[in-house]
Amino acid sequence: MMDELKKMGERAREAAFFLGKLSVAEKNKGLLAAGEALRRDTDKILAANEEDMEAGRKRGMHEGLLDRLRLTKDRIDAMADGLSQVAALDDPVGEVLSMKKRPNGLVIGEKRVPLGVVGIIYESRPNVTADAFGLCFKAGNAVILKGGSDAIKSNMAIAAAIRKALLDSGLPGDAVQLVETTDREVAKALMRMNGYIDVLIPRGGAGLIRTVVENSTVPVIETGTGNCHIFVDESADLAMAADIILNAKTQRIGVCNACESLLIHKNVSEKLWKVLSGRLSEKHVEIRGDETVCALVPEAVKASSEDWGKEYLDYILSAKTVDSLEEAIAHINRYNTKHSEAIITESYANAQKFLDEVDAAAVYVNASTRFTDGFEFGFGAEIGISTQKLHARGPMGLKALTTTKYIIYGNGQVRP
Amino acid sequence: MMDELKKMGERAREAAFFLGKLSVAEKNKGLLAAGEALRRDTDKILAANEEDMEAGRKRGMHEGLLDRLRLTKDRIDAMADGLSQVAALDDPVGEVLSMKKRPNGLVIGEKRVPLGVVGIIYESRPNVTADAFGLCFKAGNAVILKGGSDAIKSNMAIAAAIRKALLDSGLPGDAVQLVETTDREVAKALMRMNGYIDVLIPRGGAGLIRTVVENSTVPVIETGTGNCHIFVDESADLAMAADIILNAKTQRIGVCNACESLLIHKNVSEKLWKVLSGRLSEKHVEIRGDETVCALVPEAVKASSEDWGKEYLDYILSAKTVDSLEEAIAHINRYNTKHSEAIITESYANAQKFLDEVDAAAVYVNASTRFTDGFEFGFGAEIGISTQKLHARGPMGLKALTTTKYIIYGNGQVRP
Repeated sequence: MMDELKKMGERAREAAFFLGKLSVAEKNKGLLAAGEALRRDTDKILAANEEDMEAGRKRGMHEGLLDRLRLTKDRIDAMADGLSQVAALDDPVGEVLSMKKRPNGLVIGEKRVPLGVVGIIYESRPNVTADAFGLCFKAGNAVILKGGSDAIKSNMAIAAAIRKALLDSGLPGDAVQLVETTDREVAKALMRMNGYIDVLIPRGGAGLIRTVVENSTVPVIETGTGNCHIFVDESADLAMAADIILNAKTQRIGVCNACESLLIHKNVSEKLWKVLSGRLSEKHVEIRGDETVCALVPEAVKASSEDWGKEYLDYILSAKTVDSLEEAIAHINRYNTKHSEAIITESYANAQKFLDEVDAAAVYVNASTRFTDGFEFGFGAEIGISTQKLHARGPMGLKALTTTKYIIYGNGQVRP
Repeated sequence: MMDELKKMGERAREAAFFLGKLSVAEKNKGLLAAGEALRRDTDKILAANEEDMEAGRKRGMHEGLLDRLRLTKDRIDAMADGLSQVAALDDPVGEVLSMKKRPNGLVIGEKRVPLGVVGIIYESRPNVTADAFGLCFKAGNAVILKGGSDAIKSNMAIAAAIRKALLDSGLPGDAVQLVETTDREVAKALMRMNGYIDVLIPRGGAGLIRTVVENSTVPVIETGTGNCHIFVDESADLAMAADIILNAKTQRIGVCNACESLLIHKNVSEKLWKVLSGRLSEKHVEIRGDETVCALVPEAVKASSEDWGKEYLDYILSAKTVDSLEEAIAHINRYNTKHSEAIITESYANAQKFLDEVDAAAVYVNASTRFTDGFEFGFGAEIGISTQKLHARGPMGLKALTTTKYIIYGNGQVRP
């Protein structure tokens, strides 16, 4: 590990120790001050962002990525508003989840405490700098941020504004530290900072997440990729099915909870496509189907076996006909990324079976997969969507940024 | 990944799918049948164990390790009893932790479900084969076991007995699979079985745990190493302090919750050593102290700076004099392994400060660190003691072998 990173880690640990002792009022004061600082420094941040945009244009970055990178006064206001919203959330720290007395008189409690130091490795969007800081800070954690090189000037300006606001409020600036070196070796070293970083959360595309999972010795929460299915059962209300499919596929295409694959019970396949195919083609959705689908939908193209495992993040939908609910469940459990899965059905038994047997963070009956989101789930915020099974599964709010500690009150007990 | 392991992983996934659907009665039937099979196959298991023992003696394995490896009729009975005890525990699976209705009518519940496939990598003790199977099975998980080469024949005999018992009860034998190849490449391949293994739990010495943490891409729960401290505060009841120190250091030395390091407030140092040093030397405990300690305790040797970070697992205790509670907390947070820490004090404020500020899985006031244990905490069983902050912290019972799944009941909701 590089000396520079090690020092950063030590400063983060010190800040975390301090943050763990703050009252909720002190933490909220810091969040609001940070939001104000972003508004006050809008011109500076926009100027830094323009440097990133200019460098991006020179490198020939395409318009979609440039748009993710772009900051405007409205976007900076939205970041500041986000920090106020986090200030308004309940503080998860300090809650005692259970406490009981053992026969030997020891009183054992389980208390929610901050994780300590959280590392976030992310790609283009500079708003993550403020958002991740806000959630980590509210949960009492110090955060070490490693953004993409594309957004380095923007991220530095945002982090500087926040750090100054914290210091001006008598709080530790090292609650948020940005790794300013953009080379990949630094990112790899960050992934091996055991003893300094308690958890690493990658936010970005599948490639970034794979790199972090494969190289990190620090515990990782895997987030994000979603090959989400909708299964239309034999008993489905087909109008409802069509509405939900349209929504889950097209309401927003570049997100992990969008539907990528459709499974249809053979007995309703023909009827469903009659109501569905026109609506999908109006939205320019390409259908990659099996033989039955291609026979029913003239504009469909033949799916290859690779299509079943693909997260398109595009106006493309794979579609397969199945003989039974069991076949649908087996297909989903084989190809999904354990994110979000839905069944459209009027059958009580099939709904329950699907909920029980599909292995995913969120399993829906008669609703769009697009609801898998911290705000929609009522958490008020989200640091990401976990697709692994350890620690947190599904949308992660403030509680996912905490751990527990056993506190034990004795009066001289020794083990016999 | 080797083909053989991949097939094993596929069989484990299939078994896990089946196990996830079992009722608690069916799971208990399997556990009791497995226990009966161990008793019935006692002679076979003892014969296999004798082969391991003979090979160990030939390699010159020392007596302590031979004793860990040795099985007797009593030890096999104890394994069988362990499975009955697990059968008697509450089933953690299926509990709905919360369920609420969102403004849009979606009803979102969080349900406890099995992890899926658990991998356990462990060292000599063959009883882990039965114990780990029992806990994983009760929580609805399939388990892939990779034991040490020293115990391979014993582990094979135990696993064979359990598998046969499950099959005879109409349950999947692949609920427990033992990796029979003992070379290290297989262990490394096991650590990279993402998509097949949901979590890996290493059980053994610090070296094994480090290897798993450094090489695994599968999420790991780090267990075990404990550099546990006792801090004797200025206000401590010194007789109580001496009793607790003796217990935590000498009641059992080779365990992770034993005390390895003592911190003493300077104002009570002389008095404490008067009551303590004789009792420690009776138990042949070597004291490695700072200057103050060496001046007060003639038989003490000078501690080197490396002593503060050491887990001795032996009749050795490092001892340091501190000027304040703050210095004690800072020392502990710097050198501990986040396992178990204790303060001996009569001061309310100091007790609360120590509980708040020490970063460890279990923090004690006026009790021995030896209580950090699943049985002592009332969990009825233990798969290990987590020293990381993700997922589970401290003693891990059945609940640590589960995850959650969001189940969402809709009636046509789409995202606006």
